[in-house]
Amino acid sequence: MNMLIDGEWRAGAYESTDEEGEFDRQESAFRDSVSADPDAEFPAEAGRYHLYVSYACPWAHRTLIVRSLLGLEDAISVSVVDPYREDDGWQFTSDKEGCTEDHVNGFDYLRETYVAADSDFTGRVTVPVLWDKERETIVNNESKEVMRMLDTEFGDVAEREVTLYPEGYRDEVDRLVEDIYEPINNGVYRTGFAETQAAYDRAVTELFDALDHYDDLLADQRYLAGDRLTEADVAMFTTLVRFDEVYHTHFMCNRQFVREYDNLWPYLRDLYQTHGFGETVQMDHITEHYYTTHPDVSPKRIVPLGPDPDFEAPHHRDELPGGPPAELAEKPLR
Amino acid sequence: MNMLIDGEWRAGAYESTDEEGEFDRQESAFRDSVSADPDAEFPAEAGRYHLYVSYACPWAHRTLIVRSLLGLEDAISVSVVDPYREDDGWQFTSDKEGCTEDHVNGFDYLRETYVAADSDFTGRVTVPVLWDKERETIVNNESKEVMRMLDTEFGDVAEREVTLYPEGYRDEVDRLVEDIYEPINNGVYRTGFAETQAAYDRAVTELFDALDHYDDLLADQRYLAGDRLTEADVAMFTTLVRFDEVYHTHFMCNRQFVREYDNLWPYLRDLYQTHGFGETVQMDHITEHYYTTHPDVSPKRIVPLGPDPDFEAPHHRDELPGGPPAELAEKPLR
Repeated sequence: MNMLIDGEWRAGAYESTDEEGEFDRQESAFRDSVSADPDAEFPAEAGRYHLYVSYACPWAHRTLIVRSLLGLEDAISVSVVDPYREDDGWQFTSDKEGCTEDHVNGFDYLRETYVAADSDFTGRVTVPVLWDKERETIVNNESKEVMRMLDTEFGDVAEREVTLYPEGYRDEVDRLVEDIYEPINNGVYRTGFAETQAAYDRAVTELFDALDHYDDLLADQRYLAGDRLTEADVAMFTTLVRFDEVYHTHFMCNRQFVREYDNLWPYLRDLYQTHGFGETVQMDHITEHYYTTHPDVSPKRIVPLGPDPDFEAPHHRDELPGGPPAELAEKPLR
Repeated sequence: MNMLIDGEWRAGAYESTDEEGEFDRQESAFRDSVSADPDAEFPAEAGRYHLYVSYACPWAHRTLIVRSLLGLEDAISVSVVDPYREDDGWQFTSDKEGCTEDHVNGFDYLRETYVAADSDFTGRVTVPVLWDKERETIVNNESKEVMRMLDTEFGDVAEREVTLYPEGYRDEVDRLVEDIYEPINNGVYRTGFAETQAAYDRAVTELFDALDHYDDLLADQRYLAGDRLTEADVAMFTTLVRFDEVYHTHFMCNRQFVREYDNLWPYLRDLYQTHGFGETVQMDHITEHYYTTHPDVSPKRIVPLGPDPDFEAPHHRDELPGGPPAELAEKPLR
């Protein structure tokens, strides 16, 4: 695993599994907040903030979806790193389809934004990064918190009156986002990066127990929190949409495909076909990234054929109560 | 890859892929024949021959199935190697469930049988091995040929009058066994051991094109050659039964599971439930072998959860013309 130590880049600097062979994800380092309050340290303003993302990364993908759903494309600019991540970490190579240069700082490597924000930074260099162009620093690199800020603090600059954290649902959304994190969102990584049979067995069992549970839950309700589309669905989506093509084979989450689930599969298609979700899925970045970036898991770096699920197939979930925000239909996305 | 060179064991002695990154399977070395003719060099006799097999190996598995179908258990003895194969090659470790010691020679390693048969032997050490206890040598180690000998030459010592190479079907059986070998039986290995994206793409495309073709063929006929169970079904079975649990994930043959095929999946269950097929499937040997023996493919040597297909589910293939030999029902196997 590569990381920065006191602002210096080190390849292979630390092991990411604990003594029992379980994958141990480091906490994100920058935890400031953008606020709707104009007097705040980081006030929500159009044109001030920038997102560094990878289309491959499920955590960064969350922020892209919320940005699209609320119509924050003009307010918050984006740079997209190369899905192939080698010893130098995430980097900008704008000649690859879907990738961009660093529009803000002109850096070659994402790690330079971390050092620019904190010259002594020690830790992993991850996406998403929410960058403040005015103060020239990282506001936050924790996807759950960036997702929440975009959702709740940028109302004045958003094109669409959409909230994914609606009154009356907030406790439930918080609980769901928390509940699905360890067994599902992080669970696929714990399964794939397990170094021992016991660690693998624990992770894969928790993963499918949780998927079974939410498959049952979604038999009678359209979304995780009920009849409203929320951040919990965004958090679930970015894992599910990668599952059959990547996690199933690459991370050996292979009890079954998502497309074999009675309710999770139509639920996934429903989300995919909702404006803001499918448009942000760049599957070639996803498959290239995983299969070529983890030689400890897939040493040959070959991208497999994969099952190619038909995300556009009819889902019939509109027979259940609720639906996506009407604004999404009225003001379709670019 | 480990092999014998002039009778000496060498670990990592040669590369098994060609310059284009394609897996190149070495031809089997011992190609003599047992014959029904009592004056032949190797005449078919009860008690004279011995099979060295691994339950993990699809090639060895073919010979075990034919031995069971014809009722050759008393006539031809068997030793079973450890599914875990490391730098010493196939070995005997009788303390593991389903494994045996070397009942004939008392060897620790299978390679010793090769050197006993040919003190200067150069090549890979593989299963199955058909051993002649009288002349103390290897008769043949090519599964297609051993399968054929057991099927056609041991009629006088077989308990059951079953043939898998019936008159009127022979050309078709020969053609089928040949046709499925490269894209399917060997195709899963060519897919999994491909060293380049191009070699992988070629192999996986040929594999699924062939599976699609036989799925269509089996819509209207019970067996590959029509209404009769033949060696072609035995050859197809040993690949299909390993597919979802192993080849799909381990060898990245991941366009779909066999259990997602309309006809191949009931066909596989039909065979599995035919006496002689399911009884010879030792799935724990199969999964342990593949996932722990190829660190170049699965470096963590972790056996994944897998899909656990229900081979005992009803198959409804008896609505099609034909069926297994009546003798199989009348004289069930041990």
